[in-house]
Amino acid sequence: MYKFEKLARSIHQMIEDGIWKAHDKLPSLREQSELSGYSLMTVLNAYQELEAQGWLYAKDKSGYYIAERADLEINSNKEILPAQEKIQINSVVFNYLKDTQAHDIVPLGSAFPNPELLFNNKFMQLLSQHAKRKNSYLNHPNMPPGNLELRQIIAGRYQLQGISCHSDDIVITSGALDALNLSLQALTQPGDFILLQETVFYGAWQAAERLGLNVVTLPDDPESGFDLDAFEKALKQYPIKVCWLMLNAQNPIGYTVSAIIKKKIAQLLFQYQVHLIEDDVYQELNFGKEKPVSVKHFDQHNMVLHCGSFSKTLGMGARVGWVFAGSYSNAIQHVQLMSTLTVSPLLQNALVDFVAHHHYEKHLRSLRRHLDQNKKRFYQELKGRLPEDCQIHYFPTGYFLWVELPESMDSQQLYIDLLEQKISIAPSLLFRPKHTAQNFIRLNCSFEWTDELATTLDQIIYQIKKNKKA
Amino acid sequence: MYKFEKLARSIHQMIEDGIWKAHDKLPSLREQSELSGYSLMTVLNAYQELEAQGWLYAKDKSGYYIAERADLEINSNKEILPAQEKIQINSVVFNYLKDTQAHDIVPLGSAFPNPELLFNNKFMQLLSQHAKRKNSYLNHPNMPPGNLELRQIIAGRYQLQGISCHSDDIVITSGALDALNLSLQALTQPGDFILLQETVFYGAWQAAERLGLNVVTLPDDPESGFDLDAFEKALKQYPIKVCWLMLNAQNPIGYTVSAIIKKKIAQLLFQYQVHLIEDDVYQELNFGKEKPVSVKHFDQHNMVLHCGSFSKTLGMGARVGWVFAGSYSNAIQHVQLMSTLTVSPLLQNALVDFVAHHHYEKHLRSLRRHLDQNKKRFYQELKGRLPEDCQIHYFPTGYFLWVELPESMDSQQLYIDLLEQKISIAPSLLFRPKHTAQNFIRLNCSFEWTDELATTLDQIIYQIKKNKKA
Repeated sequence: MYKFEKLARSIHQMIEDGIWKAHDKLPSLREQSELSGYSLMTVLNAYQELEAQGWLYAKDKSGYYIAERADLEINSNKEILPAQEKIQINSVVFNYLKDTQAHDIVPLGSAFPNPELLFNNKFMQLLSQHAKRKNSYLNHPNMPPGNLELRQIIAGRYQLQGISCHSDDIVITSGALDALNLSLQALTQPGDFILLQETVFYGAWQAAERLGLNVVTLPDDPESGFDLDAFEKALKQYPIKVCWLMLNAQNPIGYTVSAIIKKKIAQLLFQYQVHLIEDDVYQELNFGKEKPVSVKHFDQHNMVLHCGSFSKTLGMGARVGWVFAGSYSNAIQHVQLMSTLTVSPLLQNALVDFVAHHHYEKHLRSLRRHLDQNKKRFYQELKGRLPEDCQIHYFPTGYFLWVELPESMDSQQLYIDLLEQKISIAPSLLFRPKHTAQNFIRLNCSFEWTDELATTLDQIIYQIKKNKKA
Repeated sequence: MYKFEKLARSIHQMIEDGIWKAHDKLPSLREQSELSGYSLMTVLNAYQELEAQGWLYAKDKSGYYIAERADLEINSNKEILPAQEKIQINSVVFNYLKDTQAHDIVPLGSAFPNPELLFNNKFMQLLSQHAKRKNSYLNHPNMPPGNLELRQIIAGRYQLQGISCHSDDIVITSGALDALNLSLQALTQPGDFILLQETVFYGAWQAAERLGLNVVTLPDDPESGFDLDAFEKALKQYPIKVCWLMLNAQNPIGYTVSAIIKKKIAQLLFQYQVHLIEDDVYQELNFGKEKPVSVKHFDQHNMVLHCGSFSKTLGMGARVGWVFAGSYSNAIQHVQLMSTLTVSPLLQNALVDFVAHHHYEKHLRSLRRHLDQNKKRFYQELKGRLPEDCQIHYFPTGYFLWVELPESMDSQQLYIDLLEQKISIAPSLLFRPKHTAQNFIRLNCSFEWTDELATTLDQIIYQIKKNKKA
């Protein structure tokens, strides 16, 4: 640890302990240097570090003061992720993605639905037809914001949901992850603060890290999925620029937040002038009669950038997503032209035909029915086998089950042990890297019930019981 | 301008004027504050800014000193690009890419070869066949480092050139821009120094900006294309971590650097332990008997990450590229998994068939023949029309002509004027944003000679003459 970090840490501790209060003036650089014995430069570096972390603010010539946010205890995870933990997350995610892709692994840790359910003969046929035609590659400029007809179709789908949308509001991206990353990059500068849910898609942590952002986490709410009071507190007290939230079939937990809460979120975003990047890749995977609404439904002031995708419903090859960017369309295209650039014109053209001719809705109906069946069966079978001190968080959307193991258990160890038996699961460390309680796993329940799957579940249960005793 | 920037600028001027020499100690913060009347914080910020720019270095407790690099005058462009110019480049590139893609524009400014030459019926047929097969999507894990067979094929092509290469050395990417960007991100941290050629593909400037890197530029050498002495000076004197160079059919100028110079570059890279990201997307577009070598040929120590692509030879839809990453394969996959993620499995599978069965070599032979013919004709026609005080830089590779207009002319204005007539050209501002001489344009000469093209050339000549008088 550098000297300035030591000094920063002890000042931080004094703030935490209530010795320094909001708007107190810190000793001048010279005074602090004489007090502490550190050089002027070390003192300045420490002050600037704390300023970057939001604990202090500077007034020119006059000196450094304690920031207001230091008064608030929103949850124990509000600190900025230290560098060494960041690296750890990346390695955990990297190894997890590598392990899960191996062909001989039972992929219950996979983030993607059962590929068998995604393949659609009509879509493959359309792709095949388009692949033979020159016009499929030439007809539309292969540049941001993407194929006009596809943007019109996506805009039309928003309109059907009662959301005012024009094709110019849409930017086509290489899947949803690209949409989310581009949006975050367009809306932030390094050092900005963003808000994430406590337990969240690991890609959000990685994006924050890559862009040099500070993360404030919002505690999970086991009831509604969303703690509005904590959310408002956070917006009031932290200099948050952007929230990145998933509120429908949330990954990894699975909850869907109510329309009433979403409406209130939209109001708060406007009130505090904070943007929302809304990750809504599972919006189509609802099993109820009505499609859940999004915060975008209630967004009158272009505070929400809504991200969706065809990748989770049509298979991994179809990496076509979008962001409803509104007036930020140009900003996003700027970033896109510097990085991911284009999206396959062939895929875009085939999607136009597929969606426009109602094949997509038919495919979604079938996909939902199968996912619903598979999930229910998987849930019943798992419930019958799991020890009593384990708990399944079941929600009737998406294709994940979030399983709570006894508090003493380490899901990372369970993951390692099962991998040796060629079974992958997703341990909670992927989704809540800062949290001390790591006794959760995410299971992909999109697979059809078979004898093999029964054996796999038995192996998992056996390993859970074994690790419990250890 | 902030106060600290004013102070930094005046100190910088003193270094430039030779008042401060390498290793001179600057006044302490307190002394400088008393001398200049600025606050301690302003002084510290100014010193830190200059340190970040490489003009100063700090020794703990002891203070700030003038860095050695300040003694060297490698060329007038060595300064770091100021923020306002950075933004300007992005807007220039953005508008240029937007303008050039419009369907009613004659695309002489385009970076891509004539699409008519790229379409290959066999490749479209293979794509169409693969699109119908489930296995084309499932057969290979759709994750970094990409399709094993395709990596084996690419490794085999290196081996044929006498370069030792294993499939594990290769990472498949979404085109060459992705390969270049991922390599740069994997090898650098914000604040690092990189070296670029003075006149260079604009994507290199954009990547440097996005990653917060400092850029040292190497002056163009009109004879050999590469000034080895200046290169060695730069490596000796600047803390350069990575070079990004294009040495075959260089974009935009068109020169190909000799094998002797490339060998020497490889030696210097090893000697100074500096990595090279070698942009070699036009390696296949040579019209001579022998394929030009790359610096990678002479790289015994894994200092070179060699980037190639199928996008420039098979059309914009086929955004499949690669980086010969060697031991950096894992580092690049880490970055890839956080950002661009996957490359179309369908395209990769179709490419495997296409390349393995020698269709690609056949396609390349035909492409080269047409490009050679079109370029020669275009060159003759342009030469016959251009005023005497203009000069064409002709090289027998690639599909660009680099045209030097009279010194007094502004190619950006010519670009704007021609755009009104629905003709796009690429002005030098895209490639040398820092340079004061902006009297160059890049013309795409991959199109077949027609009466329409003759008319377009006449319009360009007319506009050049008109602007010369103005």
